[in-house]
Amino acid sequence: MAEIGVGMLGYAFMGKAHSNAFKKIRYITWPPPIEPLLVGIAGRNEEAVGEAALRYGFDYATTDWRDLVADERIGLFDNGGPNSLHAEPTIAAAQAGKHVVCEKPLGRNADEAYEIWQQVAATGVKHMCAFNYRFVPAVRLAREMIEAGELGQVRHFRGRYLQDWGDDPSLDTWRFHPDEAGSGALGDLMTHVVDLARFLNGEPSTVFGFARTFIPGRKVDDAVEAAVEFENGSVGTLEATRFANGRRNAFQWEINGTKGSLAFDMERLNELQVFRADGDRARGFKTVLVSETTHPFWEWWWPPGHIIGWGDTFVHELHHFLAAIAGEHDVRPYGADFEDGYRASEVCDTIVRSGESGERETITFRA
Amino acid sequence: MAEIGVGMLGYAFMGKAHSNAFKKIRYITWPPPIEPLLVGIAGRNEEAVGEAALRYGFDYATTDWRDLVADERIGLFDNGGPNSLHAEPTIAAAQAGKHVVCEKPLGRNADEAYEIWQQVAATGVKHMCAFNYRFVPAVRLAREMIEAGELGQVRHFRGRYLQDWGDDPSLDTWRFHPDEAGSGALGDLMTHVVDLARFLNGEPSTVFGFARTFIPGRKVDDAVEAAVEFENGSVGTLEATRFANGRRNAFQWEINGTKGSLAFDMERLNELQVFRADGDRARGFKTVLVSETTHPFWEWWWPPGHIIGWGDTFVHELHHFLAAIAGEHDVRPYGADFEDGYRASEVCDTIVRSGESGERETITFRA
Amino acid sequence: MAEIGVGMLGYAFMGKAHSNAFKKIRYITWPPPIEPLLVGIAGRNEEAVGEAALRYGFDYATTDWRDLVADERIGLFDNGGPNSLHAEPTIAAAQAGKHVVCEKPLGRNADEAYEIWQQVAATGVKHMCAFNYRFVPAVRLAREMIEAGELGQVRHFRGRYLQDWGDDPSLDTWRFHPDEAGSGALGDLMTHVVDLARFLNGEPSTVFGFARTFIPGRKVDDAVEAAVEFENGSVGTLEATRFANGRRNAFQWEINGTKGSLAFDMERLNELQVFRADGDRARGFKTVLVSETTHPFWEWWWPPGHIIGWGDTFVHELHHFLAAIAGEHDVRPYGADFEDGYRASEVCDTIVRSGESGERETITFRA
Amino acid sequence: MAEIGVGMLGYAFMGKAHSNAFKKIRYITWPPPIEPLLVGIAGRNEEAVGEAALRYGFDYATTDWRDLVADERIGLFDNGGPNSLHAEPTIAAAQAGKHVVCEKPLGRNADEAYEIWQQVAATGVKHMCAFNYRFVPAVRLAREMIEAGELGQVRHFRGRYLQDWGDDPSLDTWRFHPDEAGSGALGDLMTHVVDLARFLNGEPSTVFGFARTFIPGRKVDDAVEAAVEFENGSVGTLEATRFANGRRNAFQWEINGTKGSLAFDMERLNELQVFRADGDRARGFKTVLVSETTHPFWEWWWPPGHIIGWGDTFVHELHHFLAAIAGEHDVRPYGADFEDGYRASEVCDTIVRSGESGERETITFRA
Repeated sequence: MAEIGVGMLGYAFMGKAHSNAFKKIRYITWPPPIEPLLVGIAGRNEEAVGEAALRYGFDYATTDWRDLVADERIGLFDNGGPNSLHAEPTIAAAQAGKHVVCEKPLGRNADEAYEIWQQVAATGVKHMCAFNYRFVPAVRLAREMIEAGELGQVRHFRGRYLQDWGDDPSLDTWRFHPDEAGSGALGDLMTHVVDLARFLNGEPSTVFGFARTFIPGRKVDDAVEAAVEFENGSVGTLEATRFANGRRNAFQWEINGTKGSLAFDMERLNELQVFRADGDRARGFKTVLVSETTHPFWEWWWPPGHIIGWGDTFVHELHHFLAAIAGEHDVRPYGADFEDGYRASEVCDTIVRSGESGERETITFRA
Repeated sequence: MAEIGVGMLGYAFMGKAHSNAFKKIRYITWPPPIEPLLVGIAGRNEEAVGEAALRYGFDYATTDWRDLVADERIGLFDNGGPNSLHAEPTIAAAQAGKHVVCEKPLGRNADEAYEIWQQVAATGVKHMCAFNYRFVPAVRLAREMIEAGELGQVRHFRGRYLQDWGDDPSLDTWRFHPDEAGSGALGDLMTHVVDLARFLNGEPSTVFGFARTFIPGRKVDDAVEAAVEFENGSVGTLEATRFANGRRNAFQWEINGTKGSLAFDMERLNELQVFRADGDRARGFKTVLVSETTHPFWEWWWPPGHIIGWGDTFVHELHHFLAAIAGEHDVRPYGADFEDGYRASEVCDTIVRSGESGERETITFRA
Repeated sequence: MAEIGVGMLGYAFMGKAHSNAFKKIRYITWPPPIEPLLVGIAGRNEEAVGEAALRYGFDYATTDWRDLVADERIGLFDNGGPNSLHAEPTIAAAQAGKHVVCEKPLGRNADEAYEIWQQVAATGVKHMCAFNYRFVPAVRLAREMIEAGELGQVRHFRGRYLQDWGDDPSLDTWRFHPDEAGSGALGDLMTHVVDLARFLNGEPSTVFGFARTFIPGRKVDDAVEAAVEFENGSVGTLEATRFANGRRNAFQWEINGTKGSLAFDMERLNELQVFRADGDRARGFKTVLVSETTHPFWEWWWPPGHIIGWGDTFVHELHHFLAAIAGEHDVRPYGADFEDGYRASEVCDTIVRSGESGERETITFRA
Repeated sequence: MAEIGVGMLGYAFMGKAHSNAFKKIRYITWPPPIEPLLVGIAGRNEEAVGEAALRYGFDYATTDWRDLVADERIGLFDNGGPNSLHAEPTIAAAQAGKHVVCEKPLGRNADEAYEIWQQVAATGVKHMCAFNYRFVPAVRLAREMIEAGELGQVRHFRGRYLQDWGDDPSLDTWRFHPDEAGSGALGDLMTHVVDLARFLNGEPSTVFGFARTFIPGRKVDDAVEAAVEFENGSVGTLEATRFANGRRNAFQWEINGTKGSLAFDMERLNELQVFRADGDRARGFKTVLVSETTHPFWEWWWPPGHIIGWGDTFVHELHHFLAAIAGEHDVRPYGADFEDGYRASEVCDTIVRSGESGERETITFRA
């Protein structure tokens, strides 16, 4: 079996999610397209990164990500560090010939994301922006249904990512520092909304909206609201917030077409609501438990009805990247590459710009 | 028991809903504040209005609404006719000293609504714009909880009214004629969204949005999308559409505050979703079946759990107006008067103006 | 239009529900098969029954139900009194040539129910036992789907009627007096479960179960539990209780067949859950909002999605009986006649007998 | 870190679930109480078991489970083989001094389960019957709430395990062979129902019920139905079936007490429905997403709202057993030991006996 050495930047939330995925790929997606070997992990806190190496089984830990870039055993650089550490290490790794995965948002803003994309694309390595929600079985099933024309012409896409942990003035993590995070709900949550909007419904063409900070003195946005037009003629709303009390992880979207509709809530990530305008007298949305052998990714898992978890979306995502490296398919269209990472940020920044200008803004993607 | 004669304009959908309500008030809200007597009903189709009079028990039918205005037995003029017939008859009835109820939208646009309000208010009669969804028990309960401070400071209001009957180019009713309807989803559905937004969360201050017509050649809007700011500092989205396949009458709204959240869907109008940030380890939204004896309007109905229907909201609404006529309370704040009718239209027109100007528009209410 | 005079026994919960229905039939089911005229109402409390007559518009009130039986203007006797007043007045009315509707349970036990059926059937009048849940649109739709073979061969029926108002030792209404009520949850709730089981799935053949009284000193049962076999080869469970905290009116049933399944909860009485084993990759239960023009009873109501209430089931039920009187159809199979009333009680009593004997009991219906 | 060698019997469904768990324990429940090392795996098909060893990382594969028993490096014997292979290997492993985990049902019937328990208990090793649903966070939370008295006195427990894969006469796996499986839905599903009934509500005292085989010629039961009494005075129904079309893995239970109620469905295993009779005007069941840091097992996982999967329940379960081996706590009461395994089978067999005798059967547990 072919192997690839993995170097990981970041050992906290995303480090755990990605390490878990690499370990599970080995036997859940058996046989894996390439076997990932956990070589090195980097982080700023020496003790913490050392323990992470022990915990997840990396050969070594380092406080200098350049060690990973320099390590010839590493063929895949996985960047799950804070947003301010996306650009330089990712570019350096790519320039050292390593395939690169980078967490979202790709950059702290569209300019930085564009720069990362351009620099990395020039190297010829494979690149993926880790929009893991494309790898939720229900989301992939939705994509397949839409591609097959099962919704007909799309009229509406409405998406909102609702969380509720931000309404506390005492909070202080890197996520609230503009230099480290770039933005607040915008980069953290709205990029997910925009990415799935693009994945399921194509490019937005104009946005009307704004970002809002509720907590006095906080330097990043708390919520983002927008009305949107898409190139395919559909319209809708986009929203992201950390201030929706009672909603822990409610990434909800709905898409309405002339032949049917789909709806989803990440808090029930194994379910897809499906409406077909098929003339059945028993008319209504089906609650589809996406766990059949005929459903995406499900050949790897359990019998129908035995649901998977949020963490398992990373198994699918990183398997997809390994298969791309193995030449089985390209990162696109089912995965998001760095151009997709840039485009999500471009849309997000355009919303902010609309709020600042007070005008409807047309989205222009740089080539 | 005091009595009041009712003259009704319109015998179709709203005529049926209002007639049913006046008949049920008599015994459901026993004893009623004033007993409504069904005196006369007007409509353009002589045969149809004649049958309606027989069916609902009006003393007579007429094809000329002026007959109702001239009838001294009539003390309450109830206008459920097409939008183009809201202004003149309502104003004439008020000027003839009759209390007036008018269906929403009050006018075909904000200017007409303003004119109706001004002219009617000058007469001194009682006036109510029939935003019946204020009289859904779950909505009133929500209002009471918000008034009592149970949500704390509000952060978000998101409202959308989703229907799906409009996606057919062959449709041709008065609702698609600009001269009769004034607008499409805007006046029909978005006025409801705006009214409940105002009822629950206070005045919107700015809107960013647009109306959209999907069907080529159709002369009214099919959908409306907006991002919105409120005077109380909260933000959100507003949407109305007749193109959400599978959603028959899904008037959905959610409001998030620092102490809790509420959510609602008109397709389950007896339920209110309630989240309290009370520190209970068992944290989540309650599905409250609003049918307890302690719940609004419920002293009139059945034992808990024996739900009511959409038509029953009109019983509450018209009871409210009769009680206002009887001097028990004012139409406001729990009912919508004609100023509320105007304000809903002002917000709606401002959204359209935003779409036309391509700019964020500040809402200015005329006094 | 043909007319029929109605005499009603009982002015409280059921009196209100039935009066409301007779009044709404006049215009909701326009034109009604026969127009019901509210002639007389009887009850034990003179003041209360007098007010009820005034409230609902009966010509007169009386404390002696024999006055209704003697009244030649009355052609339909509607018995919504306590269970102890079902037998004698109903039989007397029938013997006086009046068509009779009687609330469930028909008798305080199977013997009494049998006697009522036999005596009334001998007179030749029309008779209906008021199992109103047969007239919930979702339930009728279920019946039609089953009749059409859409479920295939049935494997399971499970039904439970869960309420929660009984867990209070201080309660004392006629419902807790064996002489007046006959039984507790058994006659009040389990008869409904059994009736819908029979309506949807045919006759039960054997039962294994028992009744239980939780409150010391209470003289009627609080809950009933049973395992059941049906003549069609299916099996399941039946339950009725007043002790299911948090469940106000949760009459829930599910039926599984080789081609599909249906599920229902009375707290969401406008919805039917429908599963079709049709091979669609999007597999799951649909939430059908039973409010389409093609759905049972819905030609009388509102546009799709504008739901009806619990009280409206009586409109359908009494309309059905009026149509039967008018000769449009028989009471059976969509309505329950007195034989059905007896059979429900026979099954209920057999469950109790099983609990007493400690043995599986075969159900034997008397002819 | 202490280590323990694991020998596993069975490489299919349960082999995969248990292997995955042992591998994840290493880093998800970091630091684990003892580190499990995957030493050997046994199965009948040489090629398949060889591939499983490679896939999951066992040192070796064997077609003779006696090799595992004889292997001194193995301290924990995990039996996930067919039911007919539970007794002999498990007893042999225990007699060889290895701690033993055995899948449910412990034996093919109560007698065999009793024998396994007795023989293993005599050796002094730790033993656990793998009722993994005790380790669903929502189930453990329910147990904790009940233990803390939050439901008050329990009135009802109703449990049903609904699946739908059995309604096909052509099916032929070991699960349909009485000698291998012992029974059908009874051992496969009803044991789970009984185990959680016991875990949450204590011992059943009497059962009234029966098993049913729908498919002609099939030699195991397809469904089991029962009415049940518990020692604590509560009553309810128990059901298990493979014939509930549309229900893939719907292990649903509800428990009602004087102070509150809980309800659950395995198809939404991250959610617990919680009703508190606390007098709140907003009365209803909460949908609790069991994913808070204060919730059972959740210190190991993700931020709130990022749900886990069915497979993860085995992580909790086997961690529990490792901690028991490490002396941190006993297997009971949160885990099921072999006495619990026996007791579940005793209740199941008593239901079958009731169906055969046609009598209510009292449950008698052997000591």
